[in-house]
Amino acid sequence: MARRLDFFFFIGSTYSYLSVSRAAGTAQARGVDLVWRPFSVRTLMREQNNSPFVGKPFKMRYMWRDLERRAKRLGIAFDGAPPYPIDPEELANRVATLAALEDWCPEFTQAAYKAWFLGKQDPGRPAVVRSILDELGQDVDRCLAAANADAVRDAYAAQTDRARELGIFGSPTFAHGTEIFWGDDRLEDALAWVDDAGDS
Amino acid sequence: MARRLDFFFFIGSTYSYLSVSRAAGTAQARGVDLVWRPFSVRTLMREQNNSPFVGKPFKMRYMWRDLERRAKRLGIAFDGAPPYPIDPEELANRVATLAALEDWCPEFTQAAYKAWFLGKQDPGRPAVVRSILDELGQDVDRCLAAANADAVRDAYAAQTDRARELGIFGSPTFAHGTEIFWGDDRLEDALAWVDDAGDS
Repeated sequence: MARRLDFFFFIGSTYSYLSVSRAAGTAQARGVDLVWRPFSVRTLMREQNNSPFVGKPFKMRYMWRDLERRAKRLGIAFDGAPPYPIDPEELANRVATLAALEDWCPEFTQAAYKAWFLGKQDPGRPAVVRSILDELGQDVDRCLAAANADAVRDAYAAQTDRARELGIFGSPTFAHGTEIFWGDDRLEDALAWVDDAGDS
Repeated sequence: MARRLDFFFFIGSTYSYLSVSRAAGTAQARGVDLVWRPFSVRTLMREQNNSPFVGKPFKMRYMWRDLERRAKRLGIAFDGAPPYPIDPEELANRVATLAALEDWCPEFTQAAYKAWFLGKQDPGRPAVVRSILDELGQDVDRCLAAANADAVRDAYAAQTDRARELGIFGSPTFAHGTEIFWGDDRLEDALAWVDDAGDS
C-alpha cells in the first residue's frame, strides 16, 4: 500500500489544532504523504449521540488545559481558549473542501485555525473567511460562491459518508486503508502503522 | 512537592488495564511513588452525563481495537474484548479500596484485571473475587465482610469525592497536586510534570 495517511478533520474540533499545525511536517519527515480530508464530524456526532464537551463542564475544562499543555510540549502557539463552538453553517469546512479539491487545503486550514486560536475569531463567519481567503491570494467571491454551491456541498457530504463507513466518530482521525487512529496523540501510532504496512 | 503521582482508577474502565499493568513499573523507573486510588468513576459519569461507550457502537468498536494496538505496542497481553460492562455492585472496587487501606492494592487490582481481560470473568462476581483473594493469600471472608461494611464504603465514597473535587471525569487519571492527566496515554506527560514540579 502507498505510504499515504488520510487526515480526516473538522474545523471546529479543538484538538485538531495540534494536528493541523504539525501533522504535515511530521508525516513528511517520515516520508508519508498526508491527504487532507475535511468532513462533518458534527453530523456523525449527532447521529451517534456523541457530544464530547457541550454540557460536560468538567471534561471541557480539562480539554482546554490538556490542549494548552500539549501545545506547549509540541512547540505550538497557544493563547488561552478561543470561542467555542464555531462555524455553525460549516462554511469554513466547505471552503476547506473546495481547497482540498484544488490543492490549497493545508494553507487555508492552517490560516483558519490561526484566526480561530490566535485571532480568537470564528473562521465560519463570512467576514473572517473573506479576510483569510484574501490573504491567501484567492478570488474571494469565486471561493464563497463555490463553497455555497452543490458540487462542494456534495463533495463535503461524500467525505462525511466515507468517514462514516470507516467507523470514524471524532476529529482528528488518521486512516491508512481501513485502519483508523483517533486523536492528535495517535499521529505517531498511525505513522508507525504505515511503516509496518509497507513492510508486510 | 514530593515525587508522588496519584493514580485514580476504576475496575471496569477498559483503558485502565494498560495503566494497571504498567504504571507502577514506569513510575518506579522514574523515581516516582505511585499512590493507588480506586474511585467510582461510574458515579461521576452519571453525575456528569458522560457515557463514553454504552450506546455508542462506533466509539466502542474503535476503543477495543485501539486498546489491542496499544497493548501490543506496550508489551501487555491482550486476548480480545472481555465482558463489558462489569462490577455492577462495585464489589471489586470496594475490595480494592480495602486493599489500598491495607497496602495490597496493586496485587489485587492486577489480579482482578487479569481475571477480567485474560480469564474473561467479571471480577465483581463474588465467586471470582473470592478466588482472586484466595490466590493472594487473603482471608476471603474477612475481606468480603470488610468490603461490604460502612468503613470501606465510606472510604470509597471519600475517594470519589476527592476525584470530583479535582475535576476528574474518567479513568485512569493521574494527579500531581491539582494537576490532572486523563488516560493511559498521558502517563508519560504526568511523570514529566512531576519532574518539572520538582525543579521549580
